Amino acid sequence: MPTAISPLAPSSFPEMPPIAGVRLATAAAGIRYAGRTDVLLALFDAGTAVAGVLTRSKCPSAPVDWCRARLKTGAASVLVVNSGNANAFTGKSGRVAAKLTAEIAAKAAHCKTGEVFLASTGVIGEPLDATKFAGVIDRLTAEAAPGGWHEAAQAIMTTDTFAKGAGMIAPDMATMLSFVFTDAPIAPAVLKALLRAGVGDTFNAVTIDGDTSTSDTLLAFATGAAAARGVAKMTRLSDPRLPAFRKGFNAVLANLAEQVARDGEGARKLVEIVVEGALSKKSARRIALSIANSPLVKTAIAGEDANWGRVVMAVGKAGEPANRDRLSIWFNGIRVAHKGERDPAYDEAAVSATMKKPEIALKVALGLGKGRDRVLTCDLTKEYVAINGDYRS
Amino acid sequence: MPTAISPLAPSSFPEMPPIAGVRLATAAAGIRYAGRTDVLLALFDAGTAVAGVLTRSKCPSAPVDWCRARLKTGAASVLVVNSGNANAFTGKSGRVAAKLTAEIAAKAAHCKTGEVFLASTGVIGEPLDATKFAGVIDRLTAEAAPGGWHEAAQAIMTTDTFAKGAGMIAPDMATMLSFVFTDAPIAPAVLKALLRAGVGDTFNAVTIDGDTSTSDTLLAFATGAAAARGVAKMTRLSDPRLPAFRKGFNAVLANLAEQVARDGEGARKLVEIVVEGALSKKSARRIALSIANSPLVKTAIAGEDANWGRVVMAVGKAGEPANRDRLSIWFNGIRVAHKGERDPAYDEAAVSATMKKPEIALKVALGLGKGRDRVLTCDLTKEYVAINGDYRS
Repeated sequence: MPTAISPLAPSSFPEMPPIAGVRLATAAAGIRYAGRTDVLLALFDAGTAVAGVLTRSKCPSAPVDWCRARLKTGAASVLVVNSGNANAFTGKSGRVAAKLTAEIAAKAAHCKTGEVFLASTGVIGEPLDATKFAGVIDRLTAEAAPGGWHEAAQAIMTTDTFAKGAGMIAPDMATMLSFVFTDAPIAPAVLKALLRAGVGDTFNAVTIDGDTSTSDTLLAFATGAAAARGVAKMTRLSDPRLPAFRKGFNAVLANLAEQVARDGEGARKLVEIVVEGALSKKSARRIALSIANSPLVKTAIAGEDANWGRVVMAVGKAGEPANRDRLSIWFNGIRVAHKGERDPAYDEAAVSATMKKPEIALKVALGLGKGRDRVLTCDLTKEYVAINGDYRS
Repeated sequence: MPTAISPLAPSSFPEMPPIAGVRLATAAAGIRYAGRTDVLLALFDAGTAVAGVLTRSKCPSAPVDWCRARLKTGAASVLVVNSGNANAFTGKSGRVAAKLTAEIAAKAAHCKTGEVFLASTGVIGEPLDATKFAGVIDRLTAEAAPGGWHEAAQAIMTTDTFAKGAGMIAPDMATMLSFVFTDAPIAPAVLKALLRAGVGDTFNAVTIDGDTSTSDTLLAFATGAAAARGVAKMTRLSDPRLPAFRKGFNAVLANLAEQVARDGEGARKLVEIVVEGALSKKSARRIALSIANSPLVKTAIAGEDANWGRVVMAVGKAGEPANRDRLSIWFNGIRVAHKGERDPAYDEAAVSATMKKPEIALKVALGLGKGRDRVLTCDLTKEYVAINGDYRS
C-alpha cells in the first residue's frame, strides 16, 4: 500500500454535514488489513429510494450481481461496504458470502434482505469470509449515527491515497465504489433517470488505465427525509424543481469523477482531454478515450513532454474519422500543432514550462464537424507500475 | 536511448546469407543521431515484386501514404529507410520530403520514382530534411552489395535494443518497420495474397502497449533471382509449390513478430496469451488482446505476480461473451483458477516460482465453444515508463 498522499489531493477534507435519514458506522473486521477499519455500514430511514449504475464487465463481482438484482425494487434500508477483498471471481462461495452478509445485515437492521446493498473492493479471486461480519454488523447497526463521512471514506480505501468529498470513492485496481446521499424525496424511477443521465459526462468520462473493474458500483440513495421539512415528493421528470436538483446532483457526480482521476494510481498530473470538431459527440468521445488510454501519451505527460506526435498517433488509432492535415493541438492553451504540422509559432520554452504544471489541459481540434467531448485522466508513472506490480505480493 | 540490450534478445545474431537480387548499403546522414548509421538503402534487380501491409492509422506518416499509393503496381527497384525522424504529421512539407527522397533515389538507381519504397522511424511531428539524403543516396547506390543484414538492421534501430533476424524490425514508439526478402520468382498478386494471409496470426497478433503507430510498415520483396537457377515463376495461388513456400514464409513472419514482442520497450518478460473455448476465433482474439493490452495484467506480470483476478477483469471488459463461472486460467501450465474460483489445488510456491521465468504462457479457457486464438505481448515495467517519459526530451 502506498503511504504518500497524491500530490493532486485537495488540501483538506471538506466539512460535510449529516444527511437526514442516513446513519453511518465503521469497524475493523480484519478482512485483510490490520490496524485499520475495513467495513462501512450505512442505515437508511424507511422509504429511502436507491438507484445504481454498475460495471459493464461480463465477469462482475458477487456484490455487483447482488445489487443488480435488488435495484429493481428501488428501496434501500442498509448499505454494507468492505475493503480488503472484492468478493470477485469467488464462484458459488462468493454468492453465498454476499447472501450471508445481506442476511446478517437484514437481521440486525430488521429489514428485508432485498433492501440490503453490498459493495466490496480489494483483492480479486480470494474467498471472502463473511462470517467475520457477524458480530461486527450487529454492533455497527447499534452504533450508526449521523455524519462521520471522513471515517466512512477511510474504511473503504485501498490503494487510493485520500478520502474523497461528498461520497466515498475507492478507485482500487480500477475499482470505483461511489455512493451519493441526499435527503430529497425522490421516486426511485426519477432518481434512476437522473443517475443514468448524469454519469455519461462524469463517471463514464473518466479513465485511469482503460481497465474496467469487476466491481465498479455507483449507488445514489435518496432518504426523503426532507419531506419532514415540508418538501413534496418528486415523482415525475417533469417536476419543475428537478432542473435545479439535477444541476446540483450532476455537480456532485462531476466533482467525484474528477477526484477519481486525481487519485489515479501513481498519478502526478490531472489531464483533461477535450476533442472538438469531430463528426459527432460519440466520435469525439472515442477519440478522447483513445488519447486518454494511450500509454505513450500518458508516459509523455509523466515525463513533462508535450509530445503531440503521440497525440496524433492516438487520434489515428481511434478508428474514427480524422483528417491528419486539419488537426490542431493545444497544451494548456498553447497551440503546438496546426493543420497537420508543428505550429509555426512553436515556442519550446513556453511549452516546456507549462508541462511542469500539475494540471494539463490537452485540446484537439479535428476540423471536421461540431462534435465535442471531454474526458479526464491522469499520467502514467513509474509509481503506477510499482503500485500494481507489488500489489498482491 | 536505452543502452542495455533486452534480456529477451537472442544470444547471437544469426548467420544470414545474401539474397540474390538484393544489395544493401548503410550510411550516417545525420538525421538526428550522431555517431551512428541512420539510412538503409536496398537495391533490387529488375523484375522484383513487392507486397505490403501498412498501418491502419487514420493519420499515417508521409512514407506510408507514399508506399500505399505505389504498392498497386507491385514493382520495386529501391527501398530507402531512415531512422531518427518518422516524417509523420509533417503536413505538406512531409509529402514534399518523401517525394524528394524518392526522386533522389530514382535518379541514383536509374528507375521510376514509383518503384522507390520508403519507410521512416523516429520522432513524429518534426520536419524531415530530405536534402540530407542527396549525396548520401548516390554513394549508397554505388556501394550497395549483397549481404550486410546486421548493419542494415542497426541503421534503422531507435529504442529497440537488438537487431533482428531475417528482416529488420524497429518497434519504436510502437513503430514497426519490417522487411522480408526472397529470391523466389513470385507474381505480385500471389505475394500480396501470401502476405495478407500471413500477417493475421503473426504481426497482427502482437501488441506491446495497444498503441498503433502512424508508420507501421511491413514490405515483402521477391526478387525472382532464383529463376536463373531454373525455378519457374509462381503466378497462381494454386501452384503446387506454394504450400511449402507459404509454410516457410509464415515461419519467418512468426519469428519476426515474436522478436517484436521480445524487444518491446522495457520488456523483461515475453508473454504468450492463448484463449480457447470462445464462441469464435474472432471473439478469442478480442479477449486475448484485452488481456494483452491491460496495464493491470502487464504490471502484475512485471511484478512476477500470478494475479489471475486481473485476467478475469480483462476478460470481463472485452465485451465478448464470457461466463465467469466457467473460466479456467493457467500460468505456464499451472492451473490457478477453475470454473470461476481459485483452483482447489492452488500452490502458491509453485506459481510464484514459475512467474520468475522470462517467458510466461497465460492460458484462459472460456468453456463456451471451440474458438481459439493466440497473441504475444510483453510485460509493462518501470523501464517502459522511463523510456517513453524521456524519449523526446
